[in-house]
Amino acid sequence: MKQILIQTNILKNNDDIARKNRQRLNDQKIFTINLLGSPGSGKTSILEQIIKHIKPKVNMGVIEGDLYTTKDAQRIEKHNVNVIQVNTGGICHLDASMVQHALQYLDIDYLDFLVIENVGNLVCPAAYDLGGDMKITVMSVTEGNDKPLKYPFMFQISSVIILNKVDIIDFTDFDIEEFYKDIKSLNEEIQIYEVSCKTGQGIEELSKYFESKINCKKGE
Amino acid sequence: MKQILIQTNILKNNDDIARKNRQRLNDQKIFTINLLGSPGSGKTSILEQIIKHIKPKVNMGVIEGDLYTTKDAQRIEKHNVNVIQVNTGGICHLDASMVQHALQYLDIDYLDFLVIENVGNLVCPAAYDLGGDMKITVMSVTEGNDKPLKYPFMFQISSVIILNKVDIIDFTDFDIEEFYKDIKSLNEEIQIYEVSCKTGQGIEELSKYFESKINCKKGE
Repeated sequence: MKQILIQTNILKNNDDIARKNRQRLNDQKIFTINLLGSPGSGKTSILEQIIKHIKPKVNMGVIEGDLYTTKDAQRIEKHNVNVIQVNTGGICHLDASMVQHALQYLDIDYLDFLVIENVGNLVCPAAYDLGGDMKITVMSVTEGNDKPLKYPFMFQISSVIILNKVDIIDFTDFDIEEFYKDIKSLNEEIQIYEVSCKTGQGIEELSKYFESKINCKKGE
Repeated sequence: MKQILIQTNILKNNDDIARKNRQRLNDQKIFTINLLGSPGSGKTSILEQIIKHIKPKVNMGVIEGDLYTTKDAQRIEKHNVNVIQVNTGGICHLDASMVQHALQYLDIDYLDFLVIENVGNLVCPAAYDLGGDMKITVMSVTEGNDKPLKYPFMFQISSVIILNKVDIIDFTDFDIEEFYKDIKSLNEEIQIYEVSCKTGQGIEELSKYFESKINCKKGE
């Protein structure tokens, strides 16, 4: 019997390209994050806030993943950041070859920090390594505190969780103690930043975290 | 050259099983919906509200799709509704064979209304017909009004959009006029219900809509 293991082959092929991406970005000492989260969790809004804080200090590039539109890339472009739009044409995640392709259009000799904003999806993008330094998941309090246990893989592979929209937590039934307990049960090492793009809460702290990572990378 | 069209075959096979599910549910005159939406949009909360309104009048069953947990099924069970949990084991959508399997465990001779709550995901579940009467997408105002154009397929295949969490719309930058304009540009026939599970706004109207559909189905 001939057994065709499609998924394994696809993922192996993806991992090979991700390794090449990682090598290339490491050679240039570019701190690179894969920004993940549900539609509407606030990935682009957080990115805009971070850009305002750290753009004067670092050379930044963005790869925007989206099914069909250029809406998010247009928002980023307004901040005068080098941005490449990748449209997946309906595919529910970015993969390493899409990022490899996008890297051709970024002037990576001059970058310190690269953010790859994935397609809004709390399931599929978790399976595809893109080749960066870390995965960061954005989750908003309006999504409910049960999400880590319901979508565990995304929280297990992330180094940082950005808990967004904390300014409206009192209008939700989000149980923050339960949330921390569940997250830590999945991933003891994870760091959590509570932020609000509306009030600015937590943005400076998060920006400083990125700056320290960018500086470490440059010093490697 | 041999070309293997995996995706096409998978979807054709899915459609064949979906047709059988639809025939079976039609034979029993069970009005069946495929409830879709992002993680945290409020699918289960809306379902709980609807159950309170219409359970005394109709025989209802629920199939709960989730990656790993039984959290949502446990919530539904508290309302004394016949519920079957389908765990996909990490797969990002329900497919027709999972529903076919679940139907074996529901007493479908006595059902008037079946709700299939899909995995929280605004992309992949749109591609898999399950065999019901209509697809309904839940979206919350906290997700942002740009989502219909960013995830168009889900809105194109849905007959009804339930816009949830309207009680906190004033704390968001959700542009409701833009939202209606975008939705109608994708799907002219779509019906939109604005609801809040917290205040109860819109729930009675939505329940009445379901009741009329259930009664029509029984009269077929």
